[in-house]
Amino acid sequence: MTEHFKPPTEAIIKDVLAVIKFDDRGLVPAIAQDDESGKVLMMAWMDSEAIKETLKTGTACYYSRSRSKLWRKGEESGQTQTIKDFRVDCDGDTVLIVVKQQGVACHTGRHSCFFKSINGDGIQVVEEVLINPDTLYKK
Amino acid sequence: MTEHFKPPTEAIIKDVLAVIKFDDRGLVPAIAQDDESGKVLMMAWMDSEAIKETLKTGTACYYSRSRSKLWRKGEESGQTQTIKDFRVDCDGDTVLIVVKQQGVACHTGRHSCFFKSINGDGIQVVEEVLINPDTLYKK
Repeated sequence: MTEHFKPPTEAIIKDVLAVIKFDDRGLVPAIAQDDESGKVLMMAWMDSEAIKETLKTGTACYYSRSRSKLWRKGEESGQTQTIKDFRVDCDGDTVLIVVKQQGVACHTGRHSCFFKSINGDGIQVVEEVLINPDTLYKK
Repeated sequence: MTEHFKPPTEAIIKDVLAVIKFDDRGLVPAIAQDDESGKVLMMAWMDSEAIKETLKTGTACYYSRSRSKLWRKGEESGQTQTIKDFRVDCDGDTVLIVVKQQGVACHTGRHSCFFKSINGDGIQVVEEVLINPDTLYKK
């Protein structure tokens, strides 16, 4: 278990943004790992605004490429991610957030998005649905 | 600890490649997680050839964007990654490999590439150098 996340100051956030190498769309891949289970939950993208918001609020915010806007994870589904640790890799081109996941990370209702395992037996679903996805996205 | 990886047949590999959504460069992000420590080690890219080779050989092969060719992880440094599990996410746009890491994953000689942690105290290096990088890349 990681300790409580202490949000950085504006000056530190500026330093962080200077370290991160955004791609030609202004995005960087962000991996979310569960603090308790250690499982890799999902991979999404962040732009500089999403990183600022994530660091300031201590709650994961991504950039939705399909909707072309900030995606406050859980804003619809309630399945928010509280930041426990925020990491940047050696090259500054990938972010890793260690999170306390409220409920499930995957829109299918599974703990992790990486529920398809490939081996000699084929493509197998290895995680069960924990929450009915219909209850996650009420219309 | 995950069980031993059983390489898939050609037919299964074809199914896997059909599930994966490659980007406009023909690449997909691939996250490597250590089977023993549970740590996220690195993020790199795979094209269809790298995925085929990884699945067939049971040893991680990426695609190097800087060198524009297959990157057999450890071919220079000896720090290979043996596949324990190969996962694809719900949308098919990210791969997760669970690996037995020979030595260290990072070119800086650290276990993981995600050794910079950000919080209220600034950007801090939280992993020690385990192998002198000069010994990893002998000229």
